[in-house]
Amino acid sequence: MARDVAIVGVGHSRYGVRSDVNIGELAWESISMALEDAGLEQKDIEYFVVSSVGGWSSEYLPAVVIGEYSGLTPKGTARVEAACASGSAAVKLAYDMVASGSVDIATAIGLEKMNESPTPTVVEFIGRAGNYFWEFHNFGLTFPGYYALYATAYMDRYGATEEDLCLAAVKNHYYGARNPKAHFQKEVTLEKCMSSRYIAWPLKLYDCSPITDGSSAVILASGEVARELTDTPVWIEAIGHASDTANLSKRDDFTYLRAARLAAEQAYMQAGILDGYEMYKYFDVAEVHDCFTIAEVMAYEDLRFSKPGEGYKMLRDGETYIGGKIPVNLSGGLKAKGHPIGATGVGMVAELTNQLLQRVEKDRQAPIEKGRAIAHNVGGTGHYAYVTILSLDRPRG
Amino acid sequence: MARDVAIVGVGHSRYGVRSDVNIGELAWESISMALEDAGLEQKDIEYFVVSSVGGWSSEYLPAVVIGEYSGLTPKGTARVEAACASGSAAVKLAYDMVASGSVDIATAIGLEKMNESPTPTVVEFIGRAGNYFWEFHNFGLTFPGYYALYATAYMDRYGATEEDLCLAAVKNHYYGARNPKAHFQKEVTLEKCMSSRYIAWPLKLYDCSPITDGSSAVILASGEVARELTDTPVWIEAIGHASDTANLSKRDDFTYLRAARLAAEQAYMQAGILDGYEMYKYFDVAEVHDCFTIAEVMAYEDLRFSKPGEGYKMLRDGETYIGGKIPVNLSGGLKAKGHPIGATGVGMVAELTNQLLQRVEKDRQAPIEKGRAIAHNVGGTGHYAYVTILSLDRPRG
Repeated sequence: MARDVAIVGVGHSRYGVRSDVNIGELAWESISMALEDAGLEQKDIEYFVVSSVGGWSSEYLPAVVIGEYSGLTPKGTARVEAACASGSAAVKLAYDMVASGSVDIATAIGLEKMNESPTPTVVEFIGRAGNYFWEFHNFGLTFPGYYALYATAYMDRYGATEEDLCLAAVKNHYYGARNPKAHFQKEVTLEKCMSSRYIAWPLKLYDCSPITDGSSAVILASGEVARELTDTPVWIEAIGHASDTANLSKRDDFTYLRAARLAAEQAYMQAGILDGYEMYKYFDVAEVHDCFTIAEVMAYEDLRFSKPGEGYKMLRDGETYIGGKIPVNLSGGLKAKGHPIGATGVGMVAELTNQLLQRVEKDRQAPIEKGRAIAHNVGGTGHYAYVTILSLDRPRG
Repeated sequence: MARDVAIVGVGHSRYGVRSDVNIGELAWESISMALEDAGLEQKDIEYFVVSSVGGWSSEYLPAVVIGEYSGLTPKGTARVEAACASGSAAVKLAYDMVASGSVDIATAIGLEKMNESPTPTVVEFIGRAGNYFWEFHNFGLTFPGYYALYATAYMDRYGATEEDLCLAAVKNHYYGARNPKAHFQKEVTLEKCMSSRYIAWPLKLYDCSPITDGSSAVILASGEVARELTDTPVWIEAIGHASDTANLSKRDDFTYLRAARLAAEQAYMQAGILDGYEMYKYFDVAEVHDCFTIAEVMAYEDLRFSKPGEGYKMLRDGETYIGGKIPVNLSGGLKAKGHPIGATGVGMVAELTNQLLQRVEKDRQAPIEKGRAIAHNVGGTGHYAYVTILSLDRPRG
């Protein structure tokens, strides 16, 4: 009943400490790239969704500021926020604008300029993305602390070690070193990760994603328009979404994220792929939400790339490098590419589009055989989750 | 091609200074009412969009907190922000979720708890909804100042007086006094408005909307589902949207809001109603964005209820009271019902649904003959605009 929707253009700024640009300039880096990629002009964009958590920026309400700088005014707009999953929520809403027939062409623009704010304020702000009243205010929990709870529970139950977690950092820095857009373009050895200082035991400095500025953009079009614009549309096949309690003390288990599991099930159902714990076999490549290394391990399991409790073994066996069962985070992930919150989910979709079209740097290009890719984007500590499946094949033929 | 979408339930909290409730409780007042109205339970809601500007609340990221308190977890969610038009943007996005076929039932929940924050902080925050860098930071403009620029330009060009502006306040307080949900349930005389102190000349205290807490909710369903749920669906016939420069110094005229005009044209085009300056004839009732009295006058003109420069005459002639050409803001408007920012646009749609179904208090019920109503919701000082048309008749029959 709904219309098919395809990605017709993507853009991605260099991630990092971007004090060289203001938010308008930072957004334009991605928007201009996406427009050029799509062969479109600003006037062709009928609605733009801006994904940004903001709060640390002096521009609290950035959508019109970005729109104006980028020449998208007077088109309709809104900002979308779902904590660290904001970018995927924006892609979802742009998708629905097109699928519903409201518009033929919409864009999702993700942006964050976190380094404008002094670091303690950033950490406080992110801490509030949990449950402010019960957890941040009363116990002072910040995000490394939250994810340390998951890491300790997981290690205790399944026998994973600190080394296993560091393997995710080593892999993601390996690929980040090959991505000229990444915040950290430097490899990290297991020894370096293991000897880095503790942030919240068992998570060390190299288990944590950085505070990053960056932007990303995707342009979506209806099937008919996409066919006119490009010979290589990348279709949005499915988007699953779920939420969970804001209060970690009410979570029944700390070894997985319920919202991520639900979002994955929903996406798999939409795509008609459902069986067992080898879901990796449907995909050429994945981007998962590795805000901390433990989160990447849980992502493998929540996406059913492995059985519960065996995700860390995929890292031990190198199964998520190119050549393994499914290469994961060939962009460098949140860990090395960086995590400009509002940009992250949009950036995942941009990266996977480029992967499917075989347009990324050769030494981090996944072999494309199945024509499908999957993005896993988490907000808070599993408060929100979105799972997006992209395909080279048109969903309804 | 898209599916028809109907409103099947609405809820609206008492607006005012709501220090008696936290944000979860405040949201639940509306959500519970909307669920009961629709005859639905939480499990039936497949996605919830939360409209909230936030920033003054300790819970910066309220969507999951509200969802959990209201029993909507684990459904997918995102927060939407388009400054004071956030509520309409949320309705629009919930509409697209249903129209696209992504879900059958979605809800838009608007909420703001502004009085949690000390007043100077609220004023500063709202001031940043303009262009922070060029206007707030450099010139210290806050919102009464922005709208005073419009008022002076309008009065100068068209000969309207301070009394004319006060007439909007008198009317909206008249109806607010008849709405038990309104922040101010007290009539105001012209003399009282005229003798109130200046906030930013020519705008006086009674020309300004208050700082209000409140929530509102609407539940949307696909046509098929709506028909099963209710004998009285109210259809969403059109939603227009536009944006404008964030920088007032770049506006070419201060007597109208370009974004509002564009959004209205778009909505009228979608509804197939287009002719001249008597657009009021298509509607039984309107809610317009009277954050300041001058904004109500401009709304009449931007919606083409009158020719440019003649909107204030509708107030002089009492044409926007019940019995006039088109009753406007029978809820009391932002001026008397109050303006809890994220709730406002959703509350307009809830109010108009109740008006069309003839469910409001008798002395503020519009006669329903044409079966159509219109909401006009502005963000910033015309930075964003959404115009929504509701109808008792199914758009595609």
